[in-house]
Parts: sequence; C-alpha cells; structure tokens
Amino acid sequence: MAATRASGTNAVRYGTMRDAVLGLTAVLADGSVITTGGRARKSSAGYDLTRLLIGSEGTLGVITGLTLKLYGIPETILSAVCPFASIQGACNATIAALQMGLPLARIELADEVQIRACNAYSHLALPEMPTLFLEFHGTAASAREQVEAFAEIARAEGGGEFDWAERQEDRTRLWQARHDAYWAARALKPGAEVLSTDVCVPISSLAACVGETRQDIDRLGLLAPIVGHVGDGNFHVLPLIDPSDPEERGKVQDFLDRLIDRALGFGGTCTGEHGVGQGKIRYLAQEHGPGIEVMAAIKKALDPLNILNPGKIFALA
Amino acid sequence: MAATRASGTNAVRYGTMRDAVLGLTAVLADGSVITTGGRARKSSAGYDLTRLLIGSEGTLGVITGLTLKLYGIPETILSAVCPFASIQGACNATIAALQMGLPLARIELADEVQIRACNAYSHLALPEMPTLFLEFHGTAASAREQVEAFAEIARAEGGGEFDWAERQEDRTRLWQARHDAYWAARALKPGAEVLSTDVCVPISSLAACVGETRQDIDRLGLLAPIVGHVGDGNFHVLPLIDPSDPEERGKVQDFLDRLIDRALGFGGTCTGEHGVGQGKIRYLAQEHGPGIEVMAAIKKALDPLNILNPGKIFALA
Repeated sequence: MAATRASGTNAVRYGTMRDAVLGLTAVLADGSVITTGGRARKSSAGYDLTRLLIGSEGTLGVITGLTLKLYGIPETILSAVCPFASIQGACNATIAALQMGLPLARIELADEVQIRACNAYSHLALPEMPTLFLEFHGTAASAREQVEAFAEIARAEGGGEFDWAERQEDRTRLWQARHDAYWAARALKPGAEVLSTDVCVPISSLAACVGETRQDIDRLGLLAPIVGHVGDGNFHVLPLIDPSDPEERGKVQDFLDRLIDRALGFGGTCTGEHGVGQGKIRYLAQEHGPGIEVMAAIKKALDPLNILNPGKIFALA
Repeated sequence: MAATRASGTNAVRYGTMRDAVLGLTAVLADGSVITTGGRARKSSAGYDLTRLLIGSEGTLGVITGLTLKLYGIPETILSAVCPFASIQGACNATIAALQMGLPLARIELADEVQIRACNAYSHLALPEMPTLFLEFHGTAASAREQVEAFAEIARAEGGGEFDWAERQEDRTRLWQARHDAYWAARALKPGAEVLSTDVCVPISSLAACVGETRQDIDRLGLLAPIVGHVGDGNFHVLPLIDPSDPEERGKVQDFLDRLIDRALGFGGTCTGEHGVGQGKIRYLAQEHGPGIEVMAAIKKALDPLNILNPGKIFALA
C-alpha cells in the first residue's frame, strides 16, 4: 500500500489489502510447501490458490511469505476533515463521492460518540458530530480539484466547516482523532471489555445501515462508537461491555445478531475485515447457504486430520 | 467495466475483469447451486469461493450468474496514439508511466507487424512502427494533465508524433487499428491457422520479455504479430501457421515453449488471460510445482466423478 497508509485505515483507491497480494508461500497440512501467484499482475494459470489461502484464517495452511503490490508515494497528498449534522449526511456524502468516481485515497467515518472519545483521549476540541476524515492523492492540480469537488458534495449533505491541509504536520494534526480512535474508544469506559466487530454493505446501502445501527445502539442504551472504512461500505462497532453485567452482555449479543441480519438484508456480509474465527461461525450458514459445504469439503480435502487452526470458520463434525 | 471498454482491450485503471466480479452463482457437480460473494466491496466471511470459481474453466462448476462492479463514465476521456522507434522504447514508456503512478485507463501495444496488418486491413496509413494506444480518464484538467505527462515520457523513450483527441469520433479513428487488430492479423496470411497465445510478466520485465520474444520470432522467420495489454505486463503473440507445413508447426511449438520459459524466468505466468485448457497443461507443473496437487485435490473433492469439463487444466489420473 502507499507508504502513507495510516494504521487501521483503508486505502480505498488502491483496493483492499487482499487485492494487494500477488502471491504467497504456505506450508500445508501434509507438510508440503507451495508458492502461489507470482509477480505478474494477472494470471489465468489454474485455480487461484492465493485468494483461497488469504482469509482462510490459518485453516488451510500457514502463510510464511507474501508478495505484495506496491504503490509509489503520490506527488501531492491532501488531508481533510469535515463534521456532518447527521451520520446519514456523512454516509450520503461518501456515496455521492464514490458514485461520481472521485478517486478518494481514504475516507473514514467516526460517529459523534467516537469523536467525544477522541476529544477526551487526544485532547482535541472537534465538534462532537459524525465526522469524515479524508485523503486525496494526485498531482498538485488534481488533488486540489478532488478536495474542491468533495467540499461541494459535503456542503450539499449538511457538512460543516471543511478543513484541509497539505503539509505533513498539518495532515497528522487533522487525522489525530482517527489515528487514536481505538485507544480513545477503550478509554471511554475504563475497565470495560471492548467487543470490536465489523460488517460490510453495498455502498448504496451504507447510510441506511449505519443510521439504523446507530438508532439500535441508542435504543438499547449501549455505549458503542462506530468507526467506518466507509469508502468500502465497511464499518466497525465497538460495544463497551461491563464484564460484571450479564444483562448488558445479553443486550450486546442481541444487538450483534440484529447488526448482521441488517447487513445481510442489505446484500452485505457478516464481516468485511475481521474474519469468522469462532464468534461468527453461527452466521455463515445464513450468509452462504450451501456454499459452507463447499468450504468444508475444501478444508477436509486439504487438511483431513483437521490439524490447522481447528474450530475456526466452521465447527467440523 | 467502464462503458467505454473497447473490445479485447484492458482497462488497467479499473483492475482486471476478475477483480470486477463481486459474486457469482454456480451449479456444482452434485447439482447444488451456490451463490458466492455479494454486493459488498469486501468480505472476510470464509473462503473466497468467488475467486476459486473464476478462472476454473468450468472444471469446478457452471457459472450461471455474476455480480459485477460498475464504474461511471468519466467526465473526460482522451485517447492517444504514439509510434516508437523500438518495441523496447514503447515498453519502457509503459513501465515509466506505471511506475510514476500515472492513472492510465488503457495502454495497448501493437508491434510493427501488427501495424502493417492493420494498415492493410483497415486502410490506414500509420507509421509501421511499434505503437502504443492510450486512453486517459478524469476531469477535463486531470485527463489533460495525464496526456501531457505521458507525452513527455514518450519523447524520452524515442516516441514519435503523439496524436491525441477528445471527441468520440476522433477517438474511434485513433483507436481503429487496435479495434481491428485480431481480424487484421488473420488477414495477413489468408488460409493460415492463427494460434493466439498469451503470457504475463512483472511490469519491470516487460521490455526485456517482449524484446526477446520479437527477436525469437524474427530469428525463426515466423509471421507472428504481438499485441499487448502492456499496462498489465500481459501480451499476446499470434503466430500464423501454414496448416500444410509441419516444419513451421514444429518451429511454432519450440517458440511457444521458449516464450513460456522466458515469461516464467521473469517471474511471470504461462497465461495472463487465455487460461490453460489443454494446450498449456504441460506448463503448469513448471509454474506451480506442488501447487498443482492442491488444485487437483480441490477438483477431486468438488467433482469426484470428474464430470465437469474433464481434461482441462490438468489430466487427472
């Protein structure tokens, strides 16, 4: 990814991390070592084992090497921050920018709860409103043109003061809240357990899905910031749970079930980034139907003794 | 892909065709119907069956539906054509443009033999030199900026007259030769068999691989135009074979073996687009080593009776 990739954010313009993997080396259950893909940008030479292994969560092989696509550092990088009157407005601005083909390098959402957490944690004074953090790459002229186009979209969607900068130190300052988001969320409720989950929906359904999720959190009285890689239609919810309160834990489980129902209802997925592990096994049948049996057949063919990360992705009989 | 996609050309900026597939429906060997992926831009929910099925050449399932990413028509499209003193120069210009991050929408190479074929077939008067056909997408200002940046690169690499246009009819005229390339190649030697093959190499090795391939063709005295989706490091060679000349056929087979050795030697693949079928089965072990056994294990697990397109990709025992 670009050398400017910020921790935990997504570079929309360059595709997802898995898109950046050209090939890999892995050790399989029988001890054989395979090298998949290569350094060419495309291949049609047999099955795509690279993509099969990526995201298989160690259940098909242990990845010991990766070949990644790299991108040069752009001539000009501009960063921007813009608060919105509503979370739907922030999402609608994202949708509009993507649909008009604006080449966003990064676009990240933090909701008002997350901004409140960031103000406290990082000693900032941002308006406590849903906020988009953006980055634009290009030549001096084209990056400037992108910023201006986005500012116009933001105004139309209830955006407030649109702040942007080019110098590295100013860009870091603008993005400070986003960089510290995870730790800031944790600090909102000391002693709480943080359950970090994510879903991903089609871009066109982002505003509806995020909006309904925020309403559900408020209705249940949960403390749960939302942080989104909205350029991908992907967002995280971080419920903070009091470990000594079983009722709250039950509420969070109900919330998670509804979150995933909602994402799947919009044609999305139960996880955009985090993976299945054990916690999302129960949702896979709902998302994939008979596709699960195909996945299990592949697992059994490549790891008949179930020695590779057993119990993850599916509970094999 | 963008509505402006020209037949048989590649839209570098938007990734490969397989990158555009978000999900699919397929009928498997046991008659079950699976739907993979979805409308979200990313997912980590289990194995990537979408990418496993794409490029499996019908050996794992019959694809009956696809969900594709779409891109809007850009505000401005500029097309350009530029001849080069050498094929290496044309390739080096491509490499330089990609390495500086110029967002090329399309960049296609036709060598001097192909241009000669196009002049004859499409009644054109292009200089019979290796030629790049380009397309730039963006706002009016950014597309113009891209054209100017490329023109400068081309001059540094021995590029001749750089012709560009914006109006649809002028763009079609500039790209006429590229659009007719396949039929023009066929017409070079009436009655000949056309063997269309392709390889793909890392961008940085493109000039060396294409250059050595052109030399090998000339050394053998074959008639074989080269047409490249050079933005992907992918190029096609189209040897025209006299069906009544077994010696020529033998020469072409030697040429193909060396072409693939060369591509693999550069870290590339024996096929970027065309696939394996039967003709490239012999090269897969060389490219993938023990990965072939993993592919075969998946095939056997999902199609134990070998009823789906048997004999393609690998000759199962």
